[in-house]
Amino acid sequence: MNGKMQTIDGNTAACHVAYGMSEVATIYPITPSSPLGEIADAWAVAGRKNIFGETLNVKQMQSEAGAAGAVHGSLVGGAVTCTFTASQGLLLKIPNMYKIAGELLPSVFHVTARSLSAHALSIFGDQADVMATRQTGFAQIVSSSVQEVMDLALVAHLATIESSVPFLHFFDGFRTSHEIQKIEVIDYDDMAKLFNWDAYWAFKKRAINPERPDTRGTAQNPDIYFQSREACNKYYLATPAIVAKYMEQVSTLTGRTYNLFDYVGDPQAERVVVAMGSGCEAIEETVNAMSAQGEKVGLVKVRLYRPFDVDAFFTALPASASAVTILDRTKEPGSVGEPLYTDVCAAYIDKGMAPPKIYGGRYGLSSKEFTPSMIKAVYDNMTASEPKKRFTVGINDDVTHMSLPVAEDFKAEPEGNIRAKFWGLGSDGTVGANQSAIKIIGDNTEKYAQGYFAYDSKKSGGITISHLRFGDVPIKSTYLINEADFVACHNPTYVNIYDILEGIREGGTFLLNCPWSAEEMEEQLPGDLRKTIHDKKLKFFTVDAIKIAQDVGLGGRINMIMQTCFFKLANVLPIEEAIDLLKKDIQKTFGKKGDHIVAMNISAVDNTLDNLIEVDIPESWGQAAGSIPPKPEATDYVEKIMYPVQALKGDDLPVSVFPPDGVFPTSTARYEKRGVAVSVPEWISSECIQCNQCSFICPHSAIIPILATDDELKGAPDTFETVPAVGKALKGYQFRIQVNALDCQGCGNCVDICPAKN
Amino acid sequence: MNGKMQTIDGNTAACHVAYGMSEVATIYPITPSSPLGEIADAWAVAGRKNIFGETLNVKQMQSEAGAAGAVHGSLVGGAVTCTFTASQGLLLKIPNMYKIAGELLPSVFHVTARSLSAHALSIFGDQADVMATRQTGFAQIVSSSVQEVMDLALVAHLATIESSVPFLHFFDGFRTSHEIQKIEVIDYDDMAKLFNWDAYWAFKKRAINPERPDTRGTAQNPDIYFQSREACNKYYLATPAIVAKYMEQVSTLTGRTYNLFDYVGDPQAERVVVAMGSGCEAIEETVNAMSAQGEKVGLVKVRLYRPFDVDAFFTALPASASAVTILDRTKEPGSVGEPLYTDVCAAYIDKGMAPPKIYGGRYGLSSKEFTPSMIKAVYDNMTASEPKKRFTVGINDDVTHMSLPVAEDFKAEPEGNIRAKFWGLGSDGTVGANQSAIKIIGDNTEKYAQGYFAYDSKKSGGITISHLRFGDVPIKSTYLINEADFVACHNPTYVNIYDILEGIREGGTFLLNCPWSAEEMEEQLPGDLRKTIHDKKLKFFTVDAIKIAQDVGLGGRINMIMQTCFFKLANVLPIEEAIDLLKKDIQKTFGKKGDHIVAMNISAVDNTLDNLIEVDIPESWGQAAGSIPPKPEATDYVEKIMYPVQALKGDDLPVSVFPPDGVFPTSTARYEKRGVAVSVPEWISSECIQCNQCSFICPHSAIIPILATDDELKGAPDTFETVPAVGKALKGYQFRIQVNALDCQGCGNCVDICPAKN
Ligand code: SF4
Ligand code: SF4
Ligand code: SF4
Ligand code: SF4
Repeated sequence: MNGKMQTIDGNTAACHVAYGMSEVATIYPITPSSPLGEIADAWAVAGRKNIFGETLNVKQMQSEAGAAGAVHGSLVGGAVTCTFTASQGLLLKIPNMYKIAGELLPSVFHVTARSLSAHALSIFGDQADVMATRQTGFAQIVSSSVQEVMDLALVAHLATIESSVPFLHFFDGFRTSHEIQKIEVIDYDDMAKLFNWDAYWAFKKRAINPERPDTRGTAQNPDIYFQSREACNKYYLATPAIVAKYMEQVSTLTGRTYNLFDYVGDPQAERVVVAMGSGCEAIEETVNAMSAQGEKVGLVKVRLYRPFDVDAFFTALPASASAVTILDRTKEPGSVGEPLYTDVCAAYIDKGMAPPKIYGGRYGLSSKEFTPSMIKAVYDNMTASEPKKRFTVGINDDVTHMSLPVAEDFKAEPEGNIRAKFWGLGSDGTVGANQSAIKIIGDNTEKYAQGYFAYDSKKSGGITISHLRFGDVPIKSTYLINEADFVACHNPTYVNIYDILEGIREGGTFLLNCPWSAEEMEEQLPGDLRKTIHDKKLKFFTVDAIKIAQDVGLGGRINMIMQTCFFKLANVLPIEEAIDLLKKDIQKTFGKKGDHIVAMNISAVDNTLDNLIEVDIPESWGQAAGSIPPKPEATDYVEKIMYPVQALKGDDLPVSVFPPDGVFPTSTARYEKRGVAVSVPEWISSECIQCNQCSFICPHSAIIPILATDDELKGAPDTFETVPAVGKALKGYQFRIQVNALDCQGCGNCVDICPAKN
Repeated sequence: MNGKMQTIDGNTAACHVAYGMSEVATIYPITPSSPLGEIADAWAVAGRKNIFGETLNVKQMQSEAGAAGAVHGSLVGGAVTCTFTASQGLLLKIPNMYKIAGELLPSVFHVTARSLSAHALSIFGDQADVMATRQTGFAQIVSSSVQEVMDLALVAHLATIESSVPFLHFFDGFRTSHEIQKIEVIDYDDMAKLFNWDAYWAFKKRAINPERPDTRGTAQNPDIYFQSREACNKYYLATPAIVAKYMEQVSTLTGRTYNLFDYVGDPQAERVVVAMGSGCEAIEETVNAMSAQGEKVGLVKVRLYRPFDVDAFFTALPASASAVTILDRTKEPGSVGEPLYTDVCAAYIDKGMAPPKIYGGRYGLSSKEFTPSMIKAVYDNMTASEPKKRFTVGINDDVTHMSLPVAEDFKAEPEGNIRAKFWGLGSDGTVGANQSAIKIIGDNTEKYAQGYFAYDSKKSGGITISHLRFGDVPIKSTYLINEADFVACHNPTYVNIYDILEGIREGGTFLLNCPWSAEEMEEQLPGDLRKTIHDKKLKFFTVDAIKIAQDVGLGGRINMIMQTCFFKLANVLPIEEAIDLLKKDIQKTFGKKGDHIVAMNISAVDNTLDNLIEVDIPESWGQAAGSIPPKPEATDYVEKIMYPVQALKGDDLPVSVFPPDGVFPTSTARYEKRGVAVSVPEWISSECIQCNQCSFICPHSAIIPILATDDELKGAPDTFETVPAVGKALKGYQFRIQVNALDCQGCGNCVDICPAKN
């Protein structure tokens, strides 16, 4: 390692380079690229200086189309300009991309590759958006990991100014944009040294200028348009060599090697996969694991997708390959094949080479998991007796039967990593605490660290599962943890809803936040769970984090307590040191909010370890039975799709259950009684002024004001307390505020707003 | 011929079907698709009924994006909806196209394929716009001729309702959208018989409806998006067979055969071209001509481009082909190859077939001419000693040397066609007159007819060249006339500006509108022109059309006179009959404007033939010399680009003269003194009230008001007449209106607006 190591996510890595290497950034928020603009803006406000010695000029526009238009205008005006986008946002930029490329204006668009809205919207990662722009004339360079985002973003910025061809630099949304990794950060001074200042000044000279006016954006006719359009050829022909040169320089600077196409695996590989983006990391892991078993396999990672350098591709690909599978993270219905597949086919023909057996597959759409088991299936397909020429992998397509069977549970993760998984409630702070934990470990130990955060579909109050890995070498497992050393459950209600110990390794550690004594466990924990704890010989700890938090005045904020437990149990670094670092972090994070807040958090930490209880596992748990209670009978849709999705088993659903046009039934919210609130508001009838504000504010529609006549109230249970309704018009009615405890998420909004609370 | 023959352009043909087969059309104007919306709107206003027995509901939106959004909404609402677009307009529709396809909503987008703005804007035809949408999930069907537009538009509408996959039906902008052809028009009753009414009602049932609400446009997460996205596969798999079925039915109905891919040429062809769009017509002509010479060549016409049916492709392609060239009318800088090329490469590999020699080329960008000579060069390349694997054709690329040499002047047009070329001034009515001439001939004789109109870059006052062909079989010459039987020059000034007789055939006819006597010809016509008239043994006629027009009260409107001469000289139908039809047409066209206008036009026709003079060609013209006078020396740009473009020699310019980024010098208007006005306004100083309105209104900035002191006027020539300026503030100044005769286009606007004219 030469430079400074930092534990950051892909967006921060891209922004580090984009900020340093640009004079102007025009932005418009769209998930998952929004943080790029936010970070850039924050740095600019803080006065951070780029390689030009200036703060970046960040302009938020009225739409993504406006941001693209502003990039164009800014470039024509002679400012080195970048933008950040994804998905539909990128689509809105297409018209301007043709213009920017057509006018040979150097720029970098950093794209967190994301699905496009089709049958449904999705904010998650795939490359459909980027592929929709492959014809615009932009060069396209792709990063597979957070470290590569840092390194190849730099290559993109260095190459664009020299080549005059604009670049789209992309990396997979969420998997790379939001994954936290410990990486080496390149210094702005080093960047400046590599920058072609002559090309920079030449670019400035091409800018519009009233002193030497020129004419742009002309209209051309059949007589000359074609010739003019061909005048750019030499720039595109020159670009791969320029990119290769800067890859070499960045390789020299960092010690990490980059080529237009990079090969990993057996030099005499018989089966080779070609892919681009974050999937390459998991494929590399799998190739290593398979090679260790003596299989002759390999992977070509695409770095520069456009201009596609056919010779460089065949330089990377071993001549020994008798079967090649090309993987695309996008779907183009009705095409002969997805983009990378057809490009590689054309490359063979362009090169005049007899193609080996060639296969093409789709994987990972919308951040669908892409695991070593699936990757193994891709390699196995190449030697199958009846291989699928065109396939999908990672799903069960029981309609058109394109999907590869994933029979084997193949593990490729290197030994020795520590893998921790945390179940939290959206907006309960679990993710934030884990982000701080990973930074503490990453920044203060020699360990490499990776953090990835899986959310369900609810904007707040949904489930979050944090996946943290720590290890001695860079972590390439770009998939969720399926064999955890440590599982923490921050919400006691989850034990009755989710299969939270799925995949925990034998002898692993299970930490449960709950108020239950060892005896109460018998009743509170489902039998299945107790049996797993017993059979897998887990170390089982509990902590009543809510009580500790309340005692020190932190209300429901239990993160500091759970984080302390994690440091104690996971044993990634000595506990004393960990607590010391945690307290320093508290000081840093809450210092601005006042000593009082700092003190509360520190006393939460101090009160934790004495209350961390190891539960002795009764032998009887080996015979425990009984699983998560079944859901009530419901409609076909609810039973076939909604219930499995709620139980986090959506990945297992086959194609056949889904409507092909994205049309779903309504009136299904009633089947989603989550019951996850650890505390539910109570209506105090004697205080209530009947303003109904609690009902109005509840984001989960869990509060219903009721008016009822005495007649209607006949036979109501005693607990159905009511008071006379206020107001002349309501004479004769009784009033009640009904809280639906199963819908409530325990956010406390209703209590906050209640004017009658004491 | 089964049905009604009509002489119409591609837009009208598409609109005929779209109107008949749709309930709603959402429109926004963009060249060259604007007429589609205009025609549909006019028909709706006129109360025309579609196959549903209703008038089409035509809605103009606020932009092309809005039109796409409205299509989506209208489809979701259960109305059979279409739209018309091109170029940037289509780009703005991309986000909605993903939605419409994703939700399996049947629709047809009719696209007049057009260039995209890159280094420069162009309104002309290529397929860059369509190719930018090939990944959206739309089926894509392509027509090569006006007749095919009629037939395949119908197939698209029939197939979409049955397949639920939306269709993009495209044809080349201008070459097909604006080409006038005599074609068979399919009756709405016949269309209705082929329409799948069950599918129609099923589509209606899928519509949103408050009686049975459903949920659409959901957000999906990594767990289920991929599976849902694959649920559409079976619809795409079924689509080619549905299209093939309707092609068969339309074939049965019309007697014109269509398949997913159609082959023409030698069944044992060794060299085969694959192409789509209007170029196919010229290729077919060339294949026929080459086959007649014993060459084993052929052409695969792509009809259904998406979904691309690999088996159907290889069914069409002769197994004997040892060399295949794929032609694309688009450019994707940095790609391995253009779309159709890479698709065919992938098809070979998908099929597991050893590919023959495969070549790929770009042609015809932005309506660049694509002629039999160029096509011959494409076939020749396949047997060249050093063939170009990737090439351009139709230009001279002297920079990256990709272009094929086009050595031979190869003629493929069948014998017996009558080819007439007309030189006119934009907005002088020449085009309109030719459109009416072609319709008269097409609708009243057995002859097939083709009309194409080439404009230069000026919106008004530019040059227009009309290309008319008449023949006994359908005309497939989708290129400009390069060997004319008849040339008419409607503007006498052109003889000193353009090479108007270029390519006229030996013994052809030349008609010149001019006031010159036979003697004056010696002085007025450049020597070159006279020598050509002599050497090619042309029949040379003149008519003083302006005088005739003025005499009958038509002012500068000479079209009726020129049209009468054309009918007399071209001899496509007996002159008495022609004059009769012409007069009926005058009645139809001008009837609404009053008897007076009709009478003036009829007397113009009646006065013409007596004034049509055949010029005896002096033997001395065989020795005549002297060409169009050279232009004044100027800057590099003006000499290398502007002058040739002005002389209509832009096609000959090589790539090297063009700036690759589309940046041109300013201040060049002064080098464009066109001098084409046949009459120029005269300033009558004694009447002028110095209001300056003439200067303000002139669209060509040809009028400059001048204020000058006596001092400044010293040494002015006598003809530089001035009058004392009006107004106290201008005391001491002299006033003058200066008309720049070389810039004036003779439009008469200044005279119309002048308050002081008598
Ligand atoms: S907000 Fe408070 S006072 Fe108002 S209705 Fe609810 S409980 Fe009663
Ligand atoms: S705490 Fe109150 S506002 Fe929040 S979800 Fe529960 S009922 Fe609704
Ligand atoms: S419009 Fe007529 S009156 Fe006015 S300045 Fe021109 S010539 Fe004179
Ligand atoms: S006639 Fe008058 S308005 Fe028209 S171009 Fe000539 S000067 Fe201008």
